[in-house]
Amino acid sequence: LNSKLPQVGTTIFSTMSQLAAEHQAINLSQGFPDYDGPASLLERVDYHIRQGANQYAPMTGVPQLRKALQAKLLRCYDRKVDADTEITVTSGATEALFAAIACSVRPGDEVIIFDPAYDSYEPAINLNGGTAIRLPLLPPDFRINWDQVATALTPKTRMLILNSPHNPSGQILYPEDIQALQQLVANTQLLILADEVYEHMVFDQQRHLSLNLYPDLAARSFIVSSFGKTYHITGWKVGYCVAPATLTAELRKVHQYLTFSTATPLQRALADHLHAHPEEDQRLNLFYQQKRDFFNHLLAPGRFAFTPSAGTYFQLMDYSAISQEEDTQFIQSLITQAQVAAIPLSVFYQHPPEQLTWVRFCFAKHEKTLEAAASKLLQL
Amino acid sequence: LNSKLPQVGTTIFSTMSQLAAEHQAINLSQGFPDYDGPASLLERVDYHIRQGANQYAPMTGVPQLRKALQAKLLRCYDRKVDADTEITVTSGATEALFAAIACSVRPGDEVIIFDPAYDSYEPAINLNGGTAIRLPLLPPDFRINWDQVATALTPKTRMLILNSPHNPSGQILYPEDIQALQQLVANTQLLILADEVYEHMVFDQQRHLSLNLYPDLAARSFIVSSFGKTYHITGWKVGYCVAPATLTAELRKVHQYLTFSTATPLQRALADHLHAHPEEDQRLNLFYQQKRDFFNHLLAPGRFAFTPSAGTYFQLMDYSAISQEEDTQFIQSLITQAQVAAIPLSVFYQHPPEQLTWVRFCFAKHEKTLEAAASKLLQL
Ligand SMILES: CSCCC(=O)C(=O)O
Ligand SMILES: CSCCC(=O)C(=O)O
Repeated sequence: LNSKLPQVGTTIFSTMSQLAAEHQAINLSQGFPDYDGPASLLERVDYHIRQGANQYAPMTGVPQLRKALQAKLLRCYDRKVDADTEITVTSGATEALFAAIACSVRPGDEVIIFDPAYDSYEPAINLNGGTAIRLPLLPPDFRINWDQVATALTPKTRMLILNSPHNPSGQILYPEDIQALQQLVANTQLLILADEVYEHMVFDQQRHLSLNLYPDLAARSFIVSSFGKTYHITGWKVGYCVAPATLTAELRKVHQYLTFSTATPLQRALADHLHAHPEEDQRLNLFYQQKRDFFNHLLAPGRFAFTPSAGTYFQLMDYSAISQEEDTQFIQSLITQAQVAAIPLSVFYQHPPEQLTWVRFCFAKHEKTLEAAASKLLQL
Repeated sequence: LNSKLPQVGTTIFSTMSQLAAEHQAINLSQGFPDYDGPASLLERVDYHIRQGANQYAPMTGVPQLRKALQAKLLRCYDRKVDADTEITVTSGATEALFAAIACSVRPGDEVIIFDPAYDSYEPAINLNGGTAIRLPLLPPDFRINWDQVATALTPKTRMLILNSPHNPSGQILYPEDIQALQQLVANTQLLILADEVYEHMVFDQQRHLSLNLYPDLAARSFIVSSFGKTYHITGWKVGYCVAPATLTAELRKVHQYLTFSTATPLQRALADHLHAHPEEDQRLNLFYQQKRDFFNHLLAPGRFAFTPSAGTYFQLMDYSAISQEEDTQFIQSLITQAQVAAIPLSVFYQHPPEQLTWVRFCFAKHEKTLEAAASKLLQL
């Protein structure tokens, strides 16, 4: 079988988590917390399983969960959506991203993404016959150059994929980015895919500028988020996509044949939890800001250089004062010598800038985990 | 947004289940049981959730579940597979089917499927730029005409999709089908996608002729099955695909970007259950045969004509002695007059034969549900 994705190897997240296990290293590589979701969420799964919520959920998601999301969108972003026609529950944000791309991108289409990017965007574009046009985001600030975006637009440009807060850089969109985006798309047919899975992890009094806040942008956007990130249950694989009814109708045609529906008892538990604790998501910004600060403070005396993340549960660190190795090499020594696993920044790039000396740490960990990691990292 | 799947409307399964609810009809349409999975399976979910199995599963599936499947393949089909490189756990069989098609089919490829077929095959083929070549299976016996298959092969034929036991007809493959298939593919590069989700629902002392039994066929096959069907938990959306390492590697490249992984606590619970009760699946044939016989026996005095299903949890019934309406019309009266929901056979066809007077009932229901339905159907 000739590979349709010849460039795809084993995902870095699996590789690193496995290496971490082999070397008994502290795993700050793949993004997931080492603590659990709220007890009041976890215990509802069993309740619904016992109540018999074990058969197919509606293809679009269980109504109770879509209703809870409708309320959340109003509360967080003052956006009114129709729960029946504008919200779709998916098997993780990954499925939502794939479905949005698959229903929009045709052979020959171009999709603008940024470099570095989360690893699923480009293969999803390619599998649908499209080409990813990657525009560089450069250290140390990883901001979007909107003039460059404007120049990259061609008659073939179908979609722009935005990811804010941004994985792996921890950068976010600011009001001037939104303005530039609004001007850019105003007279175009461009679709936007907004990956906002870290929506509730934005720090230092900044506000998450969700595209849900801007009717002109929301009208052309698939906006994707994740329960896994917000409720510390990455392994449940429940996400969702918000989009105008016309876009949602097309997304669902694909979703229906990708997975059809998503685990019923997990959806029901999430629905209960969101109804009972609607504002819990608001605590996440501070929760993760404290973790970021805790970790960064520990590392401040060391030789890593960094700007604190503006969002996500990731922190980039520049190790150039420690080593001049390539980052994939440096990661090896990090694992074997310091017994800490991280992700090399270069793997998120297709065209990494030269002499990129950055690694990504996930700080979604208990303080004692972060302490243990920091004490080892400080010995480098 | 110009639709990439213009022909796709609301899925018949959603439409019928909704109509059934509106008319308080007994729902024998969408295929799912009205009873629950084994208690020893259900209760393990909570155990694993409390143990903290709430973060990403490995992309390939949790090792314990892949090991259990390895043992099952040996036990049921005398097939030895490597659990690391030949088994992939997916978010339902639907995702496995999509991934197998997406990693194999390129623009211009042809895929042979049968008509009638499960509704996801053709859209998945089309989304990947392929064309479905549909070969008719005709009532009353719905057997494959292998000469017709041979004639349909062209240099563009990439894949053949087989589904045994077959939804919606309830027909299965017999030894002579396997022989014909072996001859057909012997000197070709043809891939096979075998949808065997009803593998444990085969009746009347027939054996399920899984492609796992035939090394020459298994060597070129993606074989897909489902825990949802076998353990009465269709809503958990956990399935899997068995394929040789070279095919599995390509399947996983797609799976990684479709959903990445599948709900961890559900996989862990299934793994425990399969280890504790490895042979439970063997009871399913008789369990469903009894349900089929119970339902058919009740309807025998009535005016439906039928041949008992050879497999699946579906029974086709010919209503020509009751009505000459089209089947979609007849279904309407079935719901409003008899308050029983079923699926018209024609919706599974792209080219339905003329005067098709058949409907599909799902008999995966409690005896009292089947009794209630039958007593209403007998009044027609
Ligand atoms: C789906 S595994 C990757 C988790 C993640 O988002 C990351 O580590 O970047
Ligand atoms: C995924 S909903 C359809 C269930 C089913 O397999 C059927 O009813 O044919």
